Amino acid sequence: MTGRPVGPDGKRQDVSVTKNKVIAISGGVGGAKLSMGLASEMDARNLTVIVNTGDDSWHFGLFVTPDIDTQLYTLSGRADLDRGWGRSGETWHAMDALRELGEDVWFNIGDKDIATNLLRTMRLSRGDRLTEITADFARAFGIETRLLPMSDMPVSTQLKCADGDYDFHDWFVAARAEPTVQEVVFRGAERASMTAEVETALADPELAAIVVCPSNPFLSIGPVLSVPGLRQMLKDSPAPVIGVTPVVSGQAIKGPTAAMMKGFGLPVSASAAARFHADIFDGYILDERDAGQVGEFAYIGSGLPVALADTMMVDLDAKRRLARAVLEFAETLR
Amino acid sequence: MTGRPVGPDGKRQDVSVTKNKVIAISGGVGGAKLSMGLASEMDARNLTVIVNTGDDSWHFGLFVTPDIDTQLYTLSGRADLDRGWGRSGETWHAMDALRELGEDVWFNIGDKDIATNLLRTMRLSRGDRLTEITADFARAFGIETRLLPMSDMPVSTQLKCADGDYDFHDWFVAARAEPTVQEVVFRGAERASMTAEVETALADPELAAIVVCPSNPFLSIGPVLSVPGLRQMLKDSPAPVIGVTPVVSGQAIKGPTAAMMKGFGLPVSASAAARFHADIFDGYILDERDAGQVGEFAYIGSGLPVALADTMMVDLDAKRRLARAVLEFAETLR
Repeated sequence: MTGRPVGPDGKRQDVSVTKNKVIAISGGVGGAKLSMGLASEMDARNLTVIVNTGDDSWHFGLFVTPDIDTQLYTLSGRADLDRGWGRSGETWHAMDALRELGEDVWFNIGDKDIATNLLRTMRLSRGDRLTEITADFARAFGIETRLLPMSDMPVSTQLKCADGDYDFHDWFVAARAEPTVQEVVFRGAERASMTAEVETALADPELAAIVVCPSNPFLSIGPVLSVPGLRQMLKDSPAPVIGVTPVVSGQAIKGPTAAMMKGFGLPVSASAAARFHADIFDGYILDERDAGQVGEFAYIGSGLPVALADTMMVDLDAKRRLARAVLEFAETLR
Repeated sequence: MTGRPVGPDGKRQDVSVTKNKVIAISGGVGGAKLSMGLASEMDARNLTVIVNTGDDSWHFGLFVTPDIDTQLYTLSGRADLDRGWGRSGETWHAMDALRELGEDVWFNIGDKDIATNLLRTMRLSRGDRLTEITADFARAFGIETRLLPMSDMPVSTQLKCADGDYDFHDWFVAARAEPTVQEVVFRGAERASMTAEVETALADPELAAIVVCPSNPFLSIGPVLSVPGLRQMLKDSPAPVIGVTPVVSGQAIKGPTAAMMKGFGLPVSASAAARFHADIFDGYILDERDAGQVGEFAYIGSGLPVALADTMMVDLDAKRRLARAVLEFAETLR
């Protein structure tokens, strides 16, 4: 956040702009929960979610983009909330039939989920952009929130571990996230570019807040920030950039965040997570269970403003409460 | 059939070769029934089915080869015999999900069937040949009969109708085979070639018979015969080439054969069907219901030998009886 926008004359403007747009930057499950909360708590049409595509990969000839699908399924009420990925009421006949044909199936795609992937793969092969395809899928699913892939160009999250390099799914699914990660590399990032849609959304003068969802800072937020120019746009934005902690009571709510922090020699704490992308944050939401750690944020930069909230999002009400807390916090920082 | 094989000295050989191999040339459903009968009535390992691939096409980014799949599913007991195509116990969740995404789904692929198509498409994109892929699928399904695509190169059956040109499935499925066909064209046939496997099978000195299954002569047998050199190998083969009528009592058992014959101005009769590929046949199986038409075969070439059989194949017993009749007829013609 740099305060009020600067006009063509170089002076800070005091124009009256309705600040009612919100951007969320998100990975999969945890981020989708908060985007669901935001979409319920505000006019969903004013919410844009910029989604990680670093986990995109090919399985059985299908182009799979898990975080976008998690957003699509979550925001349209189609997600399997118990399993934590994929669609509810899903069946697995195609995967069973692949096994019958002798395939070693370690990456499961449900029958309904296959349709999403088939259609996307077909349209990509025709030259349609992931951004357009995602918009069409969201429309078909009745989603009013705007879902934007972080880029239409491939960025592939690679994990350098002691025993070798892994593609994201090779590490996360096949190796059950067990090999200790020494370094995360976003292959292709230097050649990727922001889409016009992402750039326009980030430059929108009506932006009230940019919310960095409680997604894995290394594997979900990191790839988004690796897209050339995007991190700088966050830093330059007049809208406050609010981080929401992915760590509560010294544990990650879901996924490998805590293990990765340990592997990097970091304490598993909200402040350590905030510090990892400290340059972009104007404020940070700490879980109310960790109120004792507020003091640690005084040493991030020249002191990172903190607000407390229940970040666990156990149900829709909790998602909405967190969304409300984030939006109110942003208002105090504008 | 040209009689005994000719040796390097130019003389007809009288070598004692066990003639126990059989080739069937087949399209989908009707042909698969007879290949099932043959596989049950003889040592299945000695049976090779050369299968039409003229209906191969792309749907939702999947390479679909319907006649090969019908053979795979029929010979392994996985076919839905009531529906007449696809797998038994099939579900349609992926197609439903495609419709939900706004797709106009007129070509249905079941969830289990998708697996076959996904894996094949993926392997083709890696450079594997359709012949190898089909052999691996047959092995995985426990099929002992050898299934050979007519070619590894694309041949596309096109239908020229009064109202325009159609791809096979556009005509057969989308237009419900209603437009009157004026001409059938096998696009790509001139560039296609026999595989080493097909050529070796057709040249096998142990060949006892080549059976042309009761498949559509224009749309299923025609494409196979369009592969350069294949028709000539049938004519040159010392093994008798036996046709099985696709027309019984003036009707096709299944599919558009009768309507096409009418459209071509042909009588809907077994002899008219036989006449269409008369150059390759050494004998023809006429349905016993059409015994009165035997005389018509005297005017095909210098008289085409005929045998009568029940060609309806209503159950496995009937399939086996027809197979036995074909094999016995071939023996009399050797």
